[in-house]
Amino acid sequence: MRIVILRLGHRIQRDQRITTHVALTARAMGAEGMLLDSDDSGIEKSLEEARASWGGSFYVKRITGWKSEIKKWKENGGRVIHLTMYGINLPDAMPEIVADSLMIVVGAEKVPPELYGLADWNIAVGNQPHSEVAALAIMLDRLQAAYGKDALRTQFPGGKLEIIPQASGKEVKGR
Amino acid sequence: MRIVILRLGHRIQRDQRITTHVALTARAMGAEGMLLDSDDSGIEKSLEEARASWGGSFYVKRITGWKSEIKKWKENGGRVIHLTMYGINLPDAMPEIVADSLMIVVGAEKVPPELYGLADWNIAVGNQPHSEVAALAIMLDRLQAAYGKDALRTQFPGGKLEIIPQASGKEVKGR
Repeated sequence: MRIVILRLGHRIQRDQRITTHVALTARAMGAEGMLLDSDDSGIEKSLEEARASWGGSFYVKRITGWKSEIKKWKENGGRVIHLTMYGINLPDAMPEIVADSLMIVVGAEKVPPELYGLADWNIAVGNQPHSEVAALAIMLDRLQAAYGKDALRTQFPGGKLEIIPQASGKEVKGR
Repeated sequence: MRIVILRLGHRIQRDQRITTHVALTARAMGAEGMLLDSDDSGIEKSLEEARASWGGSFYVKRITGWKSEIKKWKENGGRVIHLTMYGINLPDAMPEIVADSLMIVVGAEKVPPELYGLADWNIAVGNQPHSEVAALAIMLDRLQAAYGKDALRTQFPGGKLEIIPQASGKEVKGR
């Protein structure tokens, strides 16, 4: 299954850290890349560095027209999930979600109202306020599990560094 | 099962948003509260507001001596998980984790090396760099699942507002 993230409403400076967390989480949990509706090049740079050090092929692509990206995705047969605390709770919606190509839209504070109509599914990762980073992580984890994969065992070929898991302490190996 | 979060290495201003995401995620996914090793009162205030609006009994408590908090917890029979990308990958460690009272330590950029020795388990939520918010979310989700609960169905009695889940759009009800 292909999974791409669309990050909306990113504000330069103010959202840089949270959006970087969104992108790193997407990468770690098996998404192929993130479209960023902003001119902020900092996120791209951070993820480029992560890729050089830790491998894989995750990309960040700056876009300008989020609506046309969603429409293009759907025209090509892809489906779209919008994560929102107002949507159907994930455990209730999960059985319905079937897709070969999935775009997951992650908004910052506010999103354009028309997004609710454009998405195939408006999904709440719990109907409580919390964090778009947490919501994306759980969405990806449960989604991969439904397709028989463990997101935490995603492989990242290439890169310069590899962690050797330790019961206590740190070990990082060059490769 | 009781779950309490210990947030270490929080820097006032710089980490305020991420630590708020950590706390809101902990609350949404069924932890009872968060100990914050910092004098920053902003997080407490945000979570107080969340509690007043959305219910439940989640608390944030500022502490000064993180080491003595861990020791006290262990003396009372509690166990301690430290989330770190260098630890044993969660899917491999999961069968070992059994506890009635669990403290989950979530560090910012760097944590004191002695923490690795004080924790019962050093757990990686995937051995890749990503986000402490995402790591905590998945830890809590999988932990609750192992105990037969869905973290996304956590109940929050009291509060003023309640979301009525919608396939499209927003509905919030007073209660």
